[in-house]
Amino acid sequence: MSEEIRKNFASDNVTPICPEVMAALLAANEGSVGSYGADNLTQSLNKRFGDIFETEVAVFPIATGTAANSIALSALVSPYGAVLCDQSAHINTDEGGAPEFYMHGAKLVCIPSAEGKLDPATMPAVLRNNEESGILSPVIQALSLTQANEWGLVYSLEELAALTRIAHDHGLSVHLDGARLGNAVAHLGCSPADVTWKAGVDVLSFGGTKAGAMAAEAVVFFLNGRTRPLVKEFLRRIKRSGNLWSKHRFLSAQLHALLENDVWLQNAAHANQMAQRLVDGLRRHPAAQMPYERQSNEVFVILPDLVLKDLEAVGYTFYRWPTPEDVSGTLIRLVTSYYTRPEDVDALLAEIAA
Amino acid sequence: MSEEIRKNFASDNVTPICPEVMAALLAANEGSVGSYGADNLTQSLNKRFGDIFETEVAVFPIATGTAANSIALSALVSPYGAVLCDQSAHINTDEGGAPEFYMHGAKLVCIPSAEGKLDPATMPAVLRNNEESGILSPVIQALSLTQANEWGLVYSLEELAALTRIAHDHGLSVHLDGARLGNAVAHLGCSPADVTWKAGVDVLSFGGTKAGAMAAEAVVFFLNGRTRPLVKEFLRRIKRSGNLWSKHRFLSAQLHALLENDVWLQNAAHANQMAQRLVDGLRRHPAAQMPYERQSNEVFVILPDLVLKDLEAVGYTFYRWPTPEDVSGTLIRLVTSYYTRPEDVDALLAEIAA
Amino acid sequence: MSEEIRKNFASDNVTPICPEVMAALLAANEGSVGSYGADNLTQSLNKRFGDIFETEVAVFPIATGTAANSIALSALVSPYGAVLCDQSAHINTDEGGAPEFYMHGAKLVCIPSAEGKLDPATMPAVLRNNEESGILSPVIQALSLTQANEWGLVYSLEELAALTRIAHDHGLSVHLDGARLGNAVAHLGCSPADVTWKAGVDVLSFGGTKAGAMAAEAVVFFLNGRTRPLVKEFLRRIKRSGNLWSKHRFLSAQLHALLENDVWLQNAAHANQMAQRLVDGLRRHPAAQMPYERQSNEVFVILPDLVLKDLEAVGYTFYRWPTPEDVSGTLIRLVTSYYTRPEDVDALLAEIAA
Amino acid sequence: MSEEIRKNFASDNVTPICPEVMAALLAANEGSVGSYGADNLTQSLNKRFGDIFETEVAVFPIATGTAANSIALSALVSPYGAVLCDQSAHINTDEGGAPEFYMHGAKLVCIPSAEGKLDPATMPAVLRNNEESGILSPVIQALSLTQANEWGLVYSLEELAALTRIAHDHGLSVHLDGARLGNAVAHLGCSPADVTWKAGVDVLSFGGTKAGAMAAEAVVFFLNGRTRPLVKEFLRRIKRSGNLWSKHRFLSAQLHALLENDVWLQNAAHANQMAQRLVDGLRRHPAAQMPYERQSNEVFVILPDLVLKDLEAVGYTFYRWPTPEDVSGTLIRLVTSYYTRPEDVDALLAEIAA
Repeated sequence: MSEEIRKNFASDNVTPICPEVMAALLAANEGSVGSYGADNLTQSLNKRFGDIFETEVAVFPIATGTAANSIALSALVSPYGAVLCDQSAHINTDEGGAPEFYMHGAKLVCIPSAEGKLDPATMPAVLRNNEESGILSPVIQALSLTQANEWGLVYSLEELAALTRIAHDHGLSVHLDGARLGNAVAHLGCSPADVTWKAGVDVLSFGGTKAGAMAAEAVVFFLNGRTRPLVKEFLRRIKRSGNLWSKHRFLSAQLHALLENDVWLQNAAHANQMAQRLVDGLRRHPAAQMPYERQSNEVFVILPDLVLKDLEAVGYTFYRWPTPEDVSGTLIRLVTSYYTRPEDVDALLAEIAA
Repeated sequence: MSEEIRKNFASDNVTPICPEVMAALLAANEGSVGSYGADNLTQSLNKRFGDIFETEVAVFPIATGTAANSIALSALVSPYGAVLCDQSAHINTDEGGAPEFYMHGAKLVCIPSAEGKLDPATMPAVLRNNEESGILSPVIQALSLTQANEWGLVYSLEELAALTRIAHDHGLSVHLDGARLGNAVAHLGCSPADVTWKAGVDVLSFGGTKAGAMAAEAVVFFLNGRTRPLVKEFLRRIKRSGNLWSKHRFLSAQLHALLENDVWLQNAAHANQMAQRLVDGLRRHPAAQMPYERQSNEVFVILPDLVLKDLEAVGYTFYRWPTPEDVSGTLIRLVTSYYTRPEDVDALLAEIAA
Repeated sequence: MSEEIRKNFASDNVTPICPEVMAALLAANEGSVGSYGADNLTQSLNKRFGDIFETEVAVFPIATGTAANSIALSALVSPYGAVLCDQSAHINTDEGGAPEFYMHGAKLVCIPSAEGKLDPATMPAVLRNNEESGILSPVIQALSLTQANEWGLVYSLEELAALTRIAHDHGLSVHLDGARLGNAVAHLGCSPADVTWKAGVDVLSFGGTKAGAMAAEAVVFFLNGRTRPLVKEFLRRIKRSGNLWSKHRFLSAQLHALLENDVWLQNAAHANQMAQRLVDGLRRHPAAQMPYERQSNEVFVILPDLVLKDLEAVGYTFYRWPTPEDVSGTLIRLVTSYYTRPEDVDALLAEIAA
Repeated sequence: MSEEIRKNFASDNVTPICPEVMAALLAANEGSVGSYGADNLTQSLNKRFGDIFETEVAVFPIATGTAANSIALSALVSPYGAVLCDQSAHINTDEGGAPEFYMHGAKLVCIPSAEGKLDPATMPAVLRNNEESGILSPVIQALSLTQANEWGLVYSLEELAALTRIAHDHGLSVHLDGARLGNAVAHLGCSPADVTWKAGVDVLSFGGTKAGAMAAEAVVFFLNGRTRPLVKEFLRRIKRSGNLWSKHRFLSAQLHALLENDVWLQNAAHANQMAQRLVDGLRRHPAAQMPYERQSNEVFVILPDLVLKDLEAVGYTFYRWPTPEDVSGTLIRLVTSYYTRPEDVDALLAEIAA
């Protein structure tokens, strides 16, 4: 199998479990331990994440990103509240209404933007308008940002700081959807601390599944005046939504494996490099148009429909995206991962060129 | 490690993953496959479960029992509805309010009973009273039973049939919480079909985790006039609550491994036998009182406090239960599992005798 | 019409609007005023209620008792929380699941009692058990009491104080369902302050409708450390549930009319007297059995079925209640009100005697 | 008072109760009647509305428009569903999140439009996109339209029919927010049937409060294959949300008074005429700019800030609206009602001219 060319570019979640995480599952499978988190692997997570993020944290493992995002947000806003986010945010477009379910009907207030990155300049008017609406509008109590975002784009540290400053000035907490945080960190070349709490993030959904885990994300509270009161009862939200595993060690083991020796960052950096290799090759193709800069592990490219059909005919998998009307061809998304090898990229490029 | 005596009798969820399930996880970890259930392992689950249960089913894997129970119930009742259950039911006492969360505030209407088994004789009055209350009371739309129940007791096939007949006569659907279904089947010596749809069950929460899986349960709809309309949108409820794994194959692989060669039943039968071995030994202890018959893998026994302290001092783990006031000693629960060996039971008995 | 004998004893909510409230509606119907509470009548409510209750209050008018109770409770508990109440409480039995809807699925933890009055002796064990359950049970955050209760019985000031002291000691807030508070105050001969905040009540659902209003209750926060933080956003809960009238003056006018010159108390005292007149007469009937003491405006009496049929044949209206099996006859409830006249009671007694 | 000039143009809900409705409240205040709708006034509502709308209907009175809209929508969509509406819809902007609360977190999918009127041309792409998203997006199950809309604009019968046809073709139910339906009917010169079920509307929120009532709206189901199944349990939704009055006759009486002799339509026609009189006068003012056509009883006009301050200084009340940046002056909304007299309009115009 490993000799075969890997042709699935649909997402970074079509991949198997990376070797380090699988080894950790096997290692954790020894003897009886306390359930629901009363095990050593879980109880050493705060320390592990605290070391990586260089601050005091409270960490809650959760199997899926949708649940992690939604439970985190439910702790930040009241049922009569609202979350500000970009129109294209995953929480708005791809989570089946989970945030509204977990927030008990609190609202997502969405700002449209060209590239899925909130513009600080648009926030004050929206917040002022919300304040003036009084009880007629759910009160915006949190800002949710995505890093890297749905187009694979990455907020700079300055952009993040500008957005979170406005949020805090208006009394909002800040959530970061970090399903692909590793890819963003690898792109920015900064530390995990730089891109999170040092840039004003209060709560992070740390993404593990796309970085190589089986099913493991974590809600990470960076402890400060806003977040400390939320931590105490947070486990109730996890239990109450059926997200608390009885054999909890197998969630925590995955996270340890990702953090140990920076596996998550190395996997992400590799995925980014493969995406860049793909971009470099596509640039040589006369018909390929790439509307967005490649910053993480997602490549958006417009290719002729004939090329796409040929690719699918020989077994390639990818998603079509809504394509601007005035364009010839179709916009597709190609996602690389820790599992993508240079030869896989080259084979794809050769197929496109053919 | 395997040479050591296993001293954790707190629950059947403190155990590691059984070898067959771990092997299945390893085997599933090959190549890229479709996410969110678009993989062969998931798509062959209906067939696998259908073969075991001898009827047409729709199967939805979910990592935890709390989520499986709650999502199943949310499909059976309206938000203005109610579920009838025993006062001691796990959904009422141990799931942190998850059923009410998933059912959007629908109510659990609980009937108290001595041994946690609903008495068919008590149902008609409750249902008639509910009907007469009209809009003043949430309308009871489903019955939820637990097999084996919180005291390790098992409904006979006749008892099940009597309860489900009344339920259906009043227009209720029937849900079975089968977190320990295998233990009940092993006790009854019946087929999985006998104890479920043939006895009037419409929807089953099939328990895998306590039977040896890492984290895998399944909502199993036995297709009939009541359940067919619920199946179509059921996956939305799973996605909307963040219970849909992107790398879904790793949920499905666990279930296949449990069902193949009846691993779930063999693990359960072994656990039951270990519990019986424990009971047989405890009967020889002069101070031990066992208020409930042993029918599955849970043993409830009242022992002198001094004995309990000694057990804990040498490393044994178990839960204390509320003890009747007129009794000397404390009621504890001892749970056996696939992982309990005869020598572990014997060592425990020897320690108690000492 | 006013000459006719009034034969409807089904409830105190079958009555018309009392003259003082109707006059207030007419008086309020002058000119344009600010909507959603920006009117003088609404803005003077805090002062009016503060005078009556002799303390600082925050008052929120709401048309129905079900909404008032439910919104009040939703401010006291988290969605993952619970409310302790008597099994027979109106919030548990007669509000169609509204508390669970407004509380987003938080749970009612009910204690059964003989006469619908919580026994302080039963509370500590329930609360301790809840604390020990940890995340497996929704955390009890509030106590809800009913004064007068579903059997027309009234807690003494000492009983109230004992219950609220335990509640506060365990960190619970205290809600009082005062749909018939006036009747209780009239029975106790105390002040409104005595029976509420001086006895440890934090939030009151003040009942106006049964006291003579068209549709007007009020959530009254007695301002203290527990309640002050809840007041600020409380109006959002009212708006968000569609309970905020645009022509809000017509809610507030009703409450002013009830409080001015103690109309609510005089109406309640009259209703109580009529109930006592009924009891005095029924005592002379050989077959009448009254299982509960008459303390407010509800009379529960067991009468022969033949008598009941005769009463209904000549136009009387009342509710049948579940009757103990060993009793001959049927338990009915007779409710008096401000609208019941002595001649109406005497005519009913004569009919029963006949 | 009646001699004074009426200066409150803030909304049509700042007005008193119209004489016919007040007379009906007084007339209804006789004797005891069944509670919760078991009264003649309530039970004759279906007939009354059926006559007006020339079809079979099921009518449910509710005090506020926010509750009426939200409960109606909650019957049309699943908690995992969504409602399509215009971005400016009242349910999206002014109801404090009530729709999401009542729909248990179902989503509003909003389409922006220039004048708050959904364009049929935009619907198919949104619906197709929703269908293609599968479980990743809440499924759109209903269309909600507003007639007249937030800018006082009115859909033509052809526009309505085009929108509802697309909705029905995609399996959606159609809800009409008719808080100002009378104004729309008066503008269109059609029958109430024409603008509702004959144009494809399934469920109507019939607005009474702005038409002259105290607090009375109605959810009107036009009985057909889509709506019949929703009617049976609809009252549970009303009770469960605390919207069911015990003295229900006082809700129903208001609705009867509005419908009898077409009071609602006459009040609306008068309000429209007053708005037109206002427009005619404003046209003569050199600085006044009116961005929208006057179609109902709302007039939007940009006036110099100095004029606005003068108006407020002499006691006029109105709302400022967000104003386009490139415009000099401020956009305000002036709302007329049944209560506005010609001399009130003329006095306002004179003040503006001065």
